[in-house]
Amino acid sequence: MKQFDLADILAFEQRYRTTFMNSISGFKSLQMVATANKNGISNLAVFSSIFHVGANPPYIGMVFRPDGAEHETLANILESGVYTLNNVRTDFYEAAHQTSARYPAGESEFKHCGFTEEYIADYIAPFVKESNIKLGLALKEVIPVNINNTKIVIGQVQHILLDEELVSEDGYIDLAKAQSTTVAGLDAYYQTALLGRLKYAKADNIKS
Amino acid sequence: MKQFDLADILAFEQRYRTTFMNSISGFKSLQMVATANKNGISNLAVFSSIFHVGANPPYIGMVFRPDGAEHETLANILESGVYTLNNVRTDFYEAAHQTSARYPAGESEFKHCGFTEEYIADYIAPFVKESNIKLGLALKEVIPVNINNTKIVIGQVQHILLDEELVSEDGYIDLAKAQSTTVAGLDAYYQTALLGRLKYAKADNIKS
Repeated sequence: MKQFDLADILAFEQRYRTTFMNSISGFKSLQMVATANKNGISNLAVFSSIFHVGANPPYIGMVFRPDGAEHETLANILESGVYTLNNVRTDFYEAAHQTSARYPAGESEFKHCGFTEEYIADYIAPFVKESNIKLGLALKEVIPVNINNTKIVIGQVQHILLDEELVSEDGYIDLAKAQSTTVAGLDAYYQTALLGRLKYAKADNIKS
Repeated sequence: MKQFDLADILAFEQRYRTTFMNSISGFKSLQMVATANKNGISNLAVFSSIFHVGANPPYIGMVFRPDGAEHETLANILESGVYTLNNVRTDFYEAAHQTSARYPAGESEFKHCGFTEEYIADYIAPFVKESNIKLGLALKEVIPVNINNTKIVIGQVQHILLDEELVSEDGYIDLAKAQSTTVAGLDAYYQTALLGRLKYAKADNIKS
């Protein structure tokens, strides 16, 4: 085992450190975030900083960097109050990655990257037609992180669109069956295979 | 596509909703969090609410529920100011899951679940010997989430222990080679396979 201390990490070349630190914390929740501005121009961007905040009521959090390419997503969320999360499937992860490119203002990543906007009644943020697990959120809280000037955005799930065959009897959503991908670092996309679903752990379970 | 709205979600049976909402947001960063109290008694618990906050300096966040089984972990972090994140590998995910059981106060999950404490100089939180990617953090910020009384804890990475063969030339940590697992919901453990690493996306890339 090699040991690195903070001084070593801070001495890494910048891109090396970004890649290193983004991949070391484990596989991440990957979603395409879709928004629209007041002129109805859509935006689509991949995010991997999604995390579960609560189930009742349902809340999901995500992190925005101060200098990130995701400025337009945050501006649209603050302006419209709504945004959608759409899963990245194995058959289009390359197109999803391409949404992170900087396209000219006023041009939508939906069109540039080959995705289709899908709308539901009384909700102005677009969903991604090609996804099969989609969440429509309403902005609830923007929390500043003082130590590095990032922002945590928390939304409440208002709408869910999904293939019903992905829902198990106990409410579990089968992400492998959905062909959802996960990401490590900023550019390494993975498919998954189930090892097992385990019972609620009790102190008297036999040691595995 | 089936549509569920907030009223439908709130009307779900409670355990069904917990399982549903915990799995729908995608695969999650899975880590065993290890701490020690002032008497040197260790604690070990699996968490899936880990997220990247920054690379320079390196920050990682995690969510604590107000009523969770993870009270002792948070108490130890607040008391000692330090904690470790240790990856869950395919060959011991069942033992890692078992750390979520409630053991009597003063008894360590390390012993009950078959893990080995590992220490480095001048750092009082234990690492998990069986893991091959381990991060030693120092508490930097505790952020209350007002809407549902959870807490977001942000730590700075002070120490890293890892197999050097997992680090690629550009700093990427090969999580599949490490046999790191990911989790969906609260109990579904997955292994992964790389689909591909993609280039930094530019607007003039050919559409995939």
